Amino acid sequence: MLGKAAAVNEALDVAVSLRPPLRIHEAMRYSLLAGGKRVRPILCIAACELVGGALPMAMPSACAVEMIHTMSLIHDDLPCMDNDDLRRGKPTNHKVYGEAIAVLAGDALLALAFEQIAVKTEGVPPARIVRAIGELARLIGAEGVVAGQVADVSSEGMSNVGLKELEFIHLKKTAALLEASVVLGAIMGGGSNDEVEKLRSFARSTGLLFQVVDDILDVTKSSQELGKTAGKDLVAGKVTFPKLLGIEKSREFAKELNQNAQGQLAGFDPKKAAPLVALADYVASRQS
Amino acid sequence: MLGKAAAVNEALDVAVSLRPPLRIHEAMRYSLLAGGKRVRPILCIAACELVGGALPMAMPSACAVEMIHTMSLIHDDLPCMDNDDLRRGKPTNHKVYGEAIAVLAGDALLALAFEQIAVKTEGVPPARIVRAIGELARLIGAEGVVAGQVADVSSEGMSNVGLKELEFIHLKKTAALLEASVVLGAIMGGGSNDEVEKLRSFARSTGLLFQVVDDILDVTKSSQELGKTAGKDLVAGKVTFPKLLGIEKSREFAKELNQNAQGQLAGFDPKKAAPLVALADYVASRQS
Repeated sequence: MLGKAAAVNEALDVAVSLRPPLRIHEAMRYSLLAGGKRVRPILCIAACELVGGALPMAMPSACAVEMIHTMSLIHDDLPCMDNDDLRRGKPTNHKVYGEAIAVLAGDALLALAFEQIAVKTEGVPPARIVRAIGELARLIGAEGVVAGQVADVSSEGMSNVGLKELEFIHLKKTAALLEASVVLGAIMGGGSNDEVEKLRSFARSTGLLFQVVDDILDVTKSSQELGKTAGKDLVAGKVTFPKLLGIEKSREFAKELNQNAQGQLAGFDPKKAAPLVALADYVASRQS
Repeated sequence: MLGKAAAVNEALDVAVSLRPPLRIHEAMRYSLLAGGKRVRPILCIAACELVGGALPMAMPSACAVEMIHTMSLIHDDLPCMDNDDLRRGKPTNHKVYGEAIAVLAGDALLALAFEQIAVKTEGVPPARIVRAIGELARLIGAEGVVAGQVADVSSEGMSNVGLKELEFIHLKKTAALLEASVVLGAIMGGGSNDEVEKLRSFARSTGLLFQVVDDILDVTKSSQELGKTAGKDLVAGKVTFPKLLGIEKSREFAKELNQNAQGQLAGFDPKKAAPLVALADYVASRQS
């Protein structure tokens, strides 16, 4: 996994090499190369290899999902959105480069994501590349990631958000890009429709699981254990799974989601499925 | 031409049909369906037909370039960019829907543009679609439209902008999306590399011509004739072609650009080239 993350970092560094115009490439590099576990690229590559594909088939898609993840963070942090000054302990993009450049750096990363896939993908028939681009665009747009961001913005301070709405927000805001990551990897690697759909279901369950566990930890752990302010969802008046279901039912739900995620991987070669199994296990059992 | 614009409007209306989540689709529709001459889509379709292609091959690309044009206007109008309250006499997107939704509506339109091309293009071999997507992404990103926007933002109030920088700004900010429009049309329609490159050169000259003529009109016409404030470039301290070259040399430059644009079309069927010839003529000789 560490080797994969290093390979992804190298590919990202090349994709946004420091070139003219300097300022916009500096801003893109600042956020894209700021670290991070590269979960989405690694999922993308793992899904490709799981269905029998090779690394160069998936690498441009792996870079693309990380670029889109970064773009959504840059735009989310803007004063008109979440208004965050810090991300991973560093000043946010607009704090360093100004809001105008931050908006444009996000736009440029979004465009570059599609350019990477279209221009850099190797050894994959064009029909698969077109299908992958269609999936990615749909999953990050007004019915995907953006839908989740809009619902999240709209639901703030609203008390009548139900379980269905809460699931919608997280399936779109968090799970949709994980879904894109594995679906693109599986398509590029030549997976069957059945394999693609199993991996899609795996990613949706794992994405939702991530959020349920996050909500539980916020209630049950101290700030010291979390390394961030505990109970802040409650203070912020945010609707969470424990709030709607109680802690016990939330734990049951998390268990169910993990079982579904793992179940989707059952038919695959266990050795090749190991990175995906490990990710779901980590998400399910993390304590901070 | 009018029939084409109506067909484009219909296709755009379908592409962003009012569907859940309602608010983001409302915001996207508000700016995308606000009128406009649909110059870019018409160029895209004309280029496709010029090289022997049929309308359905180009229509998704035609919608895509208009979505990207709209997205760049929405983001350009934001308070952190040009801070415009009005566009075509209507309140700008963020004035109606708020800044957060305006940022997200732009992001969603950008994603939808690529989705349209990947999912809706008919009768075109996938390899051409992939090539077209690669061209579009490159031309709108950090080395295309975004590069022009960044250079424009950075050059404001700077007195040492030279002819080369000024050309760079307009080739990127204005011409690059015109270039994408005809290049995508020509690729989808099955044009040869030579045909694609001629149309590319046509679009670059026409895009630059548009700006040179705009700058000349700003100096030579009264506000009444222009229907907008004359001399505002001078007041804003903006560098323009007349400022760098003088009026006479600017007129010569415009003539040269128009000759080059028209020259690129010389080898094509005159009947099919007519919409493109007409556009360059209009751009060259407009009086307001």
